Amino acid sequence: MKFTKTDKKQVLKFIAIGDSVTKNLTIYEYGEDIIAVDFGIGFPEGDDHGVDYIVPDMTYLLENSHKVKGLFISHAHADHFAAVPHLLQQLNVPIYANRLTQEYIKLQFNEKQFKNLKNETQFHLFNASTEPIQLGAFKVSAFNVNHSVPGSLGIAIDTPEGTVLHLADYKIDESPVIDSVIDLKKIEEYGNKGVLCMASDCLGSKTPGFVGTESSLNETFPDLFRQFPNEQLFITTISSNISRMHQIIGAAIDAGRKVVPVGRSIDQSIKIARSLGYLPYGEDAFLDVKKAFEKNQKDIVYMIAGCFGQQGSSLSRVSTGEHARVTLNPGGIVIFSSEPNPPGVDVDVEVVIDNVILRGGEVIDHRDRDDLHVSGHGHKDDLLKVASLAKPKYFIPIGGSINHIHSYTKMVEKIGVKQHQVFELLEGDVVEFSDGDARKGKRLEINDILIDGKSLDPIVVKDREKLATDGLFAVIVPVSSETRKVMGKVDVVTRGFVYVKESKELMGKSKDLVNKILNKSGNTVTDWSNVKHKIEKDLQKFLKKETGRHPLVMAHSIFV
Amino acid sequence: MKFTKTDKKQVLKFIAIGDSVTKNLTIYEYGEDIIAVDFGIGFPEGDDHGVDYIVPDMTYLLENSHKVKGLFISHAHADHFAAVPHLLQQLNVPIYANRLTQEYIKLQFNEKQFKNLKNETQFHLFNASTEPIQLGAFKVSAFNVNHSVPGSLGIAIDTPEGTVLHLADYKIDESPVIDSVIDLKKIEEYGNKGVLCMASDCLGSKTPGFVGTESSLNETFPDLFRQFPNEQLFITTISSNISRMHQIIGAAIDAGRKVVPVGRSIDQSIKIARSLGYLPYGEDAFLDVKKAFEKNQKDIVYMIAGCFGQQGSSLSRVSTGEHARVTLNPGGIVIFSSEPNPPGVDVDVEVVIDNVILRGGEVIDHRDRDDLHVSGHGHKDDLLKVASLAKPKYFIPIGGSINHIHSYTKMVEKIGVKQHQVFELLEGDVVEFSDGDARKGKRLEINDILIDGKSLDPIVVKDREKLATDGLFAVIVPVSSETRKVMGKVDVVTRGFVYVKESKELMGKSKDLVNKILNKSGNTVTDWSNVKHKIEKDLQKFLKKETGRHPLVMAHSIFV
Repeated sequence: MKFTKTDKKQVLKFIAIGDSVTKNLTIYEYGEDIIAVDFGIGFPEGDDHGVDYIVPDMTYLLENSHKVKGLFISHAHADHFAAVPHLLQQLNVPIYANRLTQEYIKLQFNEKQFKNLKNETQFHLFNASTEPIQLGAFKVSAFNVNHSVPGSLGIAIDTPEGTVLHLADYKIDESPVIDSVIDLKKIEEYGNKGVLCMASDCLGSKTPGFVGTESSLNETFPDLFRQFPNEQLFITTISSNISRMHQIIGAAIDAGRKVVPVGRSIDQSIKIARSLGYLPYGEDAFLDVKKAFEKNQKDIVYMIAGCFGQQGSSLSRVSTGEHARVTLNPGGIVIFSSEPNPPGVDVDVEVVIDNVILRGGEVIDHRDRDDLHVSGHGHKDDLLKVASLAKPKYFIPIGGSINHIHSYTKMVEKIGVKQHQVFELLEGDVVEFSDGDARKGKRLEINDILIDGKSLDPIVVKDREKLATDGLFAVIVPVSSETRKVMGKVDVVTRGFVYVKESKELMGKSKDLVNKILNKSGNTVTDWSNVKHKIEKDLQKFLKKETGRHPLVMAHSIFV
Repeated sequence: MKFTKTDKKQVLKFIAIGDSVTKNLTIYEYGEDIIAVDFGIGFPEGDDHGVDYIVPDMTYLLENSHKVKGLFISHAHADHFAAVPHLLQQLNVPIYANRLTQEYIKLQFNEKQFKNLKNETQFHLFNASTEPIQLGAFKVSAFNVNHSVPGSLGIAIDTPEGTVLHLADYKIDESPVIDSVIDLKKIEEYGNKGVLCMASDCLGSKTPGFVGTESSLNETFPDLFRQFPNEQLFITTISSNISRMHQIIGAAIDAGRKVVPVGRSIDQSIKIARSLGYLPYGEDAFLDVKKAFEKNQKDIVYMIAGCFGQQGSSLSRVSTGEHARVTLNPGGIVIFSSEPNPPGVDVDVEVVIDNVILRGGEVIDHRDRDDLHVSGHGHKDDLLKVASLAKPKYFIPIGGSINHIHSYTKMVEKIGVKQHQVFELLEGDVVEFSDGDARKGKRLEINDILIDGKSLDPIVVKDREKLATDGLFAVIVPVSSETRKVMGKVDVVTRGFVYVKESKELMGKSKDLVNKILNKSGNTVTDWSNVKHKIEKDLQKFLKKETGRHPLVMAHSIFV
């Protein structure tokens, strides 16, 4: 008897497309069904070469578009939802998200390039109160977790291979300001029924203890308003932290100050949060920024965008005196209610602080008092508590750098988890589950999409990198369009390379080198791309030897 | 009676040329006499565009070269001495420094560009034991302070206007590892005799308490060697921290491991420190890196350069597997005995850490234990203690950002110092002292010298900035060398700008724009620089409108 057809066993695939600290995207696949969790933007680290933000690689979703049943968003942070419009332009996938996230996404549809999405997109309400959603092989439900934006969700995915808990950014907050407490009981129930795998936030896996509750800052702002009853005050925080805004607005009202939102992100967040009932304050709690200058400054408080010192942000412009409507007075105080030492942007923050001081202002930040911020990411004890309740067979730490991911592994090893139970994944890594076991699958190649207003080709960015470090060295070869003979003289142009006056000799030698190559082909260019390649290669080598630099070398023929 | 000649009163000038966290240079001037304190390099912050380091503006010293009597170096850190050869190339000024600093400077003379300085430079030994040095109106002497490099000096400058204490980087270390305790008694003596002004380190002015002693780490390294008796170990620290090296080497010997220096800076520091007796260890304590691979890894410890994750450093290359001689084994441990969250380079450090983990290694840093590093800069209580002993009439906080400088002011205000007694200076600011009073003088314009192997013109860097962010847009116009008529077709080349395939229309429109300008001048180019300017200006405006970008626009004519 011959078996010509095998009943290929289905496997559950966990595909880490964009899993790093930002730019989140996870794909779950089983047979003919795919669901995705989160679709957020990433941020360039270090030298950005004009890249504004990064969109996760959507190739796999597009190539398997017939399978894609839905996209679930865990919470309303840009690194978890803000790339959604880019996906929707290519694939009309139903979006499952809470009200807050939906509102933020709809806000993006006001941008010219996304206007067409407004009517086409199918939004489905998805939160801890909605019924489980069956999409092919997947049954998906949500439970509450805590984080620095309200309504953050843990996601439970029932699959034919077992239950997966997907816990993106979270912490345990026993007394949140405007949110529900994390549903540890639900996690425990899943744990008792059996969890195949838990994908878990790992950003705090190096920090001991519990991270603590947002309400530990309840007294911070009343105290600051008491301490500075007559001063001009600016408070800056991240615009999605609605709970923090709630504390600031409440304290401002008690202190007899009206809140002046400054900056589009802050303004929009307040509007959305008020419309959804997160901020139960009337119109009279606020003052339009246009009217702020005519008020006595001790009667208002500016809630201003730009807590990470972002260039072009409202706070950055105020700090340099370039803001059209808001002026920092001498003695004015800027309070940073935000993450200390934000990675990658610490220099920007320090620039803003220095500029505030130069304008005669004062700064209060984490170095002055430690009750200005509490993180939304659980520390070791938060993460361990959840792990011990969920008791998953396998762990996949997500939402962190390699360092955080590895620290999570070491952390759970201390509570008896074995190394083979934890998958440390890089972008493109795949874990396959079948018959209760798990193994790494074949890795996908990942190509991020770089956005600087419009999408950028990776070659463009690579060129910019070279130009940024060592400048341009261009050779122009005039060629007769009739005879293909080299006409006149080869010319050399440099920009950002070396100070030209000091380098006449170098230019001369470079021209000689090019002329020699042209001579070899009888000063006739029939196959320019070959000659071009030879010129660029030889010049690169020559310039490296002479100057130790790697400028972008570009040979260009012009037909005359 | 007519006064035709006035006896102009002499003033003492304090000129802050390069005072920031790095790139230190202070000039003291009285009448026909100038002395300078420190001449260090600075580091670019954020995007560096290929700038390796920055040299302080030496214009004032060169313009007044006949007055310059000597340069005093406070301690052997690159940001206080490493620009000296650049000055010496222009001005043969006598150098007053301790032995260690002299050795480091002489090391720089091995570089090709500085070879000529070897025999010409006059070094004078200057430390707490040498006699006061009279140079014109100045009598200069030194006293011991503590810092993260041995032999660090406070400098006392007696002038006709009174005594100035110049305390660059310092802390109070009651039990230094290989150094003398800071001479608080001497500072008190000066204070009792009367101090006109104290220039003081201010980097720790936001941090409460005393910073603590270097010997608090005495048990760290023995403990680590005990904890990991069989592991491959790498310890990275800054190469000038000889006291830290002393602790590491001592602990290594006790643990039966030989020390393998990896990286030129570490290698050279060890050689110099041994030659001066700072590291009292014989040849047998060390092992050449060439022989390290054949040893059992548990019998050696790598002391490796690159604790800030510097690209190209030994540690960075080991972390990516690109080091020619040293391989990180799985399970190998990299220990960072260095500053936590180094400003501006935190991303680089995290990249190295991630790469170490990717190669199967482990990392121990400040997040794992808090006894891996102690700063060389005094905290509030160090600074206040010194201030209360010196009791200067005027304060000039130095060696910090605007934020640190201003915090120093607020700190001393709390011990009764009045605002007018503290001068918060920016680069180029001048303070003038006469008759016991002080006021700000006319500010000097400062132009840093940017170095990337050889000196860089500011225009070059500016071009790189544009190229880095938005790329290049070049227009090439072929012109007959005989008739000056435009020949053939105008061509457009872009690099790092937009993906060319997507922008044919834009290229076409740009060519039209250029052709129109050329048409207006009858397609004849007699005054190219005017036409060039017009093309570049109009194209910049056009491209900004069409793409929102500011590429470097370059029009170039080629004669055929």
